[in-house]
Amino acid sequence: MSYEMLHREFEQVGRLRHAQAMLTWDEAVMMPAGGGAARAEALATLAAMEHRLVSAPPIGDWTAEALTNERLDGWRRANVHEMRRAWQRARALPEALVAEFSRASSRCEQLWRKARPANDWAGVEDALDRVMALARERAQGLAAALNMHPYDALMDGYEPGLNRALLDPLFARLTAELPAIIDRAIATQPKPLPLAGPFPAARQEALGRMLMERLGFDFARGRLDLTHHPFCGGDPDDVRVTTRHNEEDFLESMFAVLHETGHAMYEQGLPEAWRAQPVGESGGMALHESQSLFMEMQVCRGPAFLDFAAPLIRQALGRSAEDPAWSAGNLHRAATRVQRSRIRVQADETTYPLHVILRYELEQALIDGELQVRDLPEAWNARSKALLDLNLGDNHRDGCLQDVHWYGGIVGYFPTYTLGAVAAAQLFQAAAAALPDLHETIREGNFAPLLAWLRRNVHAIASSRDTAAIIAQATGAPLGVEAFLRHLRDRYGG
Amino acid sequence: MSYEMLHREFEQVGRLRHAQAMLTWDEAVMMPAGGGAARAEALATLAAMEHRLVSAPPIGDWTAEALTNERLDGWRRANVHEMRRAWQRARALPEALVAEFSRASSRCEQLWRKARPANDWAGVEDALDRVMALARERAQGLAAALNMHPYDALMDGYEPGLNRALLDPLFARLTAELPAIIDRAIATQPKPLPLAGPFPAARQEALGRMLMERLGFDFARGRLDLTHHPFCGGDPDDVRVTTRHNEEDFLESMFAVLHETGHAMYEQGLPEAWRAQPVGESGGMALHESQSLFMEMQVCRGPAFLDFAAPLIRQALGRSAEDPAWSAGNLHRAATRVQRSRIRVQADETTYPLHVILRYELEQALIDGELQVRDLPEAWNARSKALLDLNLGDNHRDGCLQDVHWYGGIVGYFPTYTLGAVAAAQLFQAAAAALPDLHETIREGNFAPLLAWLRRNVHAIASSRDTAAIIAQATGAPLGVEAFLRHLRDRYGG
Repeated sequence: MSYEMLHREFEQVGRLRHAQAMLTWDEAVMMPAGGGAARAEALATLAAMEHRLVSAPPIGDWTAEALTNERLDGWRRANVHEMRRAWQRARALPEALVAEFSRASSRCEQLWRKARPANDWAGVEDALDRVMALARERAQGLAAALNMHPYDALMDGYEPGLNRALLDPLFARLTAELPAIIDRAIATQPKPLPLAGPFPAARQEALGRMLMERLGFDFARGRLDLTHHPFCGGDPDDVRVTTRHNEEDFLESMFAVLHETGHAMYEQGLPEAWRAQPVGESGGMALHESQSLFMEMQVCRGPAFLDFAAPLIRQALGRSAEDPAWSAGNLHRAATRVQRSRIRVQADETTYPLHVILRYELEQALIDGELQVRDLPEAWNARSKALLDLNLGDNHRDGCLQDVHWYGGIVGYFPTYTLGAVAAAQLFQAAAAALPDLHETIREGNFAPLLAWLRRNVHAIASSRDTAAIIAQATGAPLGVEAFLRHLRDRYGG
Repeated sequence: MSYEMLHREFEQVGRLRHAQAMLTWDEAVMMPAGGGAARAEALATLAAMEHRLVSAPPIGDWTAEALTNERLDGWRRANVHEMRRAWQRARALPEALVAEFSRASSRCEQLWRKARPANDWAGVEDALDRVMALARERAQGLAAALNMHPYDALMDGYEPGLNRALLDPLFARLTAELPAIIDRAIATQPKPLPLAGPFPAARQEALGRMLMERLGFDFARGRLDLTHHPFCGGDPDDVRVTTRHNEEDFLESMFAVLHETGHAMYEQGLPEAWRAQPVGESGGMALHESQSLFMEMQVCRGPAFLDFAAPLIRQALGRSAEDPAWSAGNLHRAATRVQRSRIRVQADETTYPLHVILRYELEQALIDGELQVRDLPEAWNARSKALLDLNLGDNHRDGCLQDVHWYGGIVGYFPTYTLGAVAAAQLFQAAAAALPDLHETIREGNFAPLLAWLRRNVHAIASSRDTAAIIAQATGAPLGVEAFLRHLRDRYGG
């Protein structure tokens, strides 16, 4: 009885989340600038309504009661655990804070869209200061209720159970080991022949669409569109992938599309029977990122995939097989080029973790109150110098203005990118062990066995188990950094 | 105090309506077919939540109390009246019916999208039967609570106060007078020279955009996109206009765009101070349609507008001024061609009311239970023969499948089209009297004086007065059919 009531209440939550996901997509992809204020208010209202449903006192009683019911099967029990977790987090925060945080984040993100291309730090500083003040208030409220450190409480919202105790040693190991891998790659990699543009947007889009379809993305249940910052949003039956086209560098959009397709196929592979219930949702964001990086880094930047894709790329972009720049080998060299560069989303997989560690350090300091928003550009530049040997000067556009996350209220999320990379390597090595002819099937453009393995070992499990259990079950070992370092050394030497 | 509480509650309603409007637009314009089930559920949940807020018992008490407050100014008082009206209608219906009606309508509309092009009546008959059964249940619930006839109670939801007692004599007059006007026009109109296609969609779109901008549509607060059935949706600061392109007939899309731009500019002209409050919303749908038909029929199909637009049209479509088919005069003849034809949205303004009267009769019979959905195709064909001398046979695609309305749960709406046409004529004649050089400014492409007149006399009033009062104030006379018949006789003879 309590289970049925919970099911009904959380179905409404799921439907509200559908509305929020679609309105967020629309805001980034479709909305004219003048619609910003109304959209911010609408999203704030939906967030407040979701919060009201999830934090309602009966949810606490019903979840406690349902968990005493020994006849509840595994999925239902996991569903109730997810509900209780959501209730515990929601009731830690007053509704007014939830709505105000949503509103301030929407507005700040709208300002950021204009400020970034204009390199206008002053144009968002106050709005970001407001968002960070509210993020701190959220973090403190959650920390008190959940008995966690405030920054851990934010990370826990994106990847349940993720905390500094787990990450600090992992990130320390990467900080220690990556520089040698990077240096060696830079010193020894043969320079790829230049892939000369321009690449008309329409051709890049057609190429992206074709590769999405070949990988297994179902366009009857999703779309591909253009926006400022590639992302994957929407609903499992209506997944919205976005990208942007750089007419001088098609690899950027192509790999962005392949990356988001990894996210998208995870969503499309969630179990149909559990739509709009917490247990039917995708797992934590580290697991989500493992799916995008599995596709992008493990599969698509590898030589087997590029053997398959090179003729398709040449055809889509009107390039000749006789031109050595457009050989599979040269494409692979271009796709695995190591460079210390400014932009996280364009970074190669050896330097990427250092971009994440930079943000991990700074957002902790912002939440702990050790760093003020007004001092962020300077701190960003100093850590960029230390970790990546970059000199940014006044170029905030490629510095602390480069990512939408903080401006959109997303704090505590960045570490999931690197945890996802680590998990992707471990999952791929397990898949390769389970599917002995994996590289041959990839080379033939047959992704069905790989997708079936992911569906079975990750997608179809949804939130019925946590990330640690899913990884351990799929790979036979707890999540660790070894597979990732092995992958980097295999691919880049060092 | 009660006023402030109402303001806060109804602001949430306004935000939910924003979400519903945008998700409805997305469904028609963006959503892949696989997203249909989830979207139907999300819209049903939002409708149920809106219903829960509006029908809450305190709304009755607070509105009653607020109306006793003599210090409440005119707009606030009107706002409370609108809230009370919404509460009275909402509490007449159980939430489960509201959600089920939303769900059944979304699903039926999704089926209709496939059934219409396939001429597949059987493919939607059951779904429509379900929608009509629920529409009847709604009508009866509203009728009992509001002490109205069931069909009147549905019309009242689209245009407050609209009823059969007002419409029957008006429609009887049109049924009596239009055939002679139509016959005379058909007998005497010179046949326009053919406007030979094809007209590439991209050129039609560019033309539509340019004319929208010239009329005064603000693209910083709106968009133009493609869909199956032109409509105008969204939010006053984010108005979504849609059209479709027929590559053989550019007039169809051009006038659809100009029509929807009339709706859109009404939305964009609503008072900014009253966003997301009932009094700040547009008035009834007859008044809304008066704004679209004001632009389309009164302004844009008139000779002054076509003198202005002809060179722009020729340029956009790559046609020569030397070709007599592309003269302003011939475009005017094509834009005012009278024909008894099958498709309402393509009908000229003399035959259009007969299309509406057909639907008015049939939907009354469906709601009253005198007509069963299974007998609809036959009844449609019989009335098409009687009113418009059409022989439809098995062509339901151009018969009872042609309009989305009933399939989307919209019953009692059609009469507002003709009431809007009647009001548009009366408003235009008042504007012409108030702005003596109106035709010259239109010929010069200067729409600012006309838009200012509409802003002042209609748009900025929002729902602070009812349609009858707005028309009477703007035109100096109660709404009547004389101006419309005068307009038709001026333009078509008879």
